[in-house]
Amino acid sequence: MPHLNLEYSDNLPELKVDVLLLRLNNALLASGQFADELDIKSRAQAFANYQVGTSLAARAFAHVRLAILSGRTEAVKKQLSAHLLEVLREAIPAQPGLDIQLCVEVLDIEREPYAKLHLPG
Amino acid sequence: MPHLNLEYSDNLPELKVDVLLLRLNNALLASGQFADELDIKSRAQAFANYQVGTSLAARAFAHVRLAILSGRTEAVKKQLSAHLLEVLREAIPAQPGLDIQLCVEVLDIEREPYAKLHLPG
Amino acid sequence: MPHLNLEYSDNLPELKVDVLLLRLNNALLASGQFADELDIKSRAQAFANYQVGTSLAARAFAHVRLAILSGRTEAVKKQLSAHLLEVLREAIPAQPGLDIQLCVEVLDIEREPYAKLHLPG
Repeated sequence: MPHLNLEYSDNLPELKVDVLLLRLNNALLASGQFADELDIKSRAQAFANYQVGTSLAARAFAHVRLAILSGRTEAVKKQLSAHLLEVLREAIPAQPGLDIQLCVEVLDIEREPYAKLHLPG
Repeated sequence: MPHLNLEYSDNLPELKVDVLLLRLNNALLASGQFADELDIKSRAQAFANYQVGTSLAARAFAHVRLAILSGRTEAVKKQLSAHLLEVLREAIPAQPGLDIQLCVEVLDIEREPYAKLHLPG
Repeated sequence: MPHLNLEYSDNLPELKVDVLLLRLNNALLASGQFADELDIKSRAQAFANYQVGTSLAARAFAHVRLAILSGRTEAVKKQLSAHLLEVLREAIPAQPGLDIQLCVEVLDIEREPYAKLHLPG
């Protein structure tokens, strides 16, 4: 915890996804909400099969799903999503001829049944 | 919003996944629940590693996860899942020798922290 | 139902993912919570793009997300996650020079709108 999933359409070939993941993690760490940087686990997946709306126009999306242990306030969640959206915006500029949507969702992980094991190397 | 994820086992080689995504989006638009067709963002992923149950028999699945902003009624959600399941059923016919399960799940996206940016092309 | 997603970083090359999925399903069946083994649908995905924390040290993760129909108690969910974590632990041993995190999350599927169709082969 937290777990971050970045899903994006694969028509954003100039996206440097490793750089973006590191920046997203840095934004999460800078929020002060997470005690240990090691806890932040992010992964990204490009989708070759996607459909935005019902048109065949050129459209792209990048969607961050941030899952955090339950208990944080709405205000904290809004701050987190605003910061992550800002990182997305910096990484994915507007492009002539391509409609792009950037989204950030924050969801709770049920705290009680969450189980974890750390195996230091 | 809405976000749709289609996950399926890769032993359905005749599935035309791009056609299916477009039909799923059309069903969502036809529901009247979503004002702008552009908002509907769907993606699909075939899994090469999967296990249905504890048997090694030939089994397949296709699972739609529809995430919508919180606030819709149970009745609306049931209608949405029924329509999406019908689209799945039309796209994935029964096959002799292959046990297939089709599923549709509807879940809420927390409305307050959801953040979005639109970059028209 | 249940749906299990195993997500892991692709720097665990010795992981036998098909064996692990079968063991996870067997653990779920042994829990006695699921009437029909056929209902247990698991899939796994290795991520080539991931970032654990803000360091570039060698780090890995494996994360199980178990989604079950709503209504089970906290105690049942905790038992399920503990059993699944134990299966992960047996499959993924500690490795010198690699920091590994294993996690299990249990979440509810909203019962009312869940729709399903079974097409026996």
